[in-house]
Amino acid sequence: MEERIEISILLDFYGELLTDKQKDIMNMYYNEDLSLGEISEINNTSRQAIHDILKRCCKLLLEYESKLELKNKNEKLLLLKESLLVKFDCLSDMVNNDEAAFLINEIKKQLIENL
Amino acid sequence: MEERIEISILLDFYGELLTDKQKDIMNMYYNEDLSLGEISEINNTSRQAIHDILKRCCKLLLEYESKLELKNKNEKLLLLKESLLVKFDCLSDMVNNDEAAFLINEIKKQLIENL
Repeated sequence: MEERIEISILLDFYGELLTDKQKDIMNMYYNEDLSLGEISEINNTSRQAIHDILKRCCKLLLEYESKLELKNKNEKLLLLKESLLVKFDCLSDMVNNDEAAFLINEIKKQLIENL
Repeated sequence: MEERIEISILLDFYGELLTDKQKDIMNMYYNEDLSLGEISEINNTSRQAIHDILKRCCKLLLEYESKLELKNKNEKLLLLKESLLVKFDCLSDMVNNDEAAFLINEIKKQLIENL
């Protein structure tokens, strides 16, 4: 199950590097939860062919991650964002100045929307 | 000149997706400023072969950017960082509370080091 989730996340990051056909088949299996049988029927091909495509694409996605680390970097950014938001809450509690409180709120919004 | 700089930046983001040989040749031309003649001599091959590799790799790098937009996203992150740092400076000026000033400084450091 965990591997399925990981592959699904990697598909978000690197799906564009696959061919349209590869991406469709990976989406059917990892995001829409279709079975090998259902996917082979839709694509008018054998279960073995679908199995081989899934296996090859998983290998490709893991290779991309080992080279570019987009998932890893994104996780770090999300941790940074969380940590900053906690600190802003502390800061809000320390400040008794309307102007500063307003600016802290603006910064928080900007961070939530853009990071 | 601008195209050279752009390719050099794309090489930072996507160089790992090239083969070692492609990466070496791209680095020689775009980062170390070697000529086609010098690179072909080092690689014991023709100027035409080097020219073809450079052309093919530039195309690949531009395709990767059109698909993943890492350079574009990184530029947006840097703008966000700059904008946040300016706001932190404003915030520092508004606050006359040592504890809050210390925390603002901590947040700035964390942002500079991690974004």
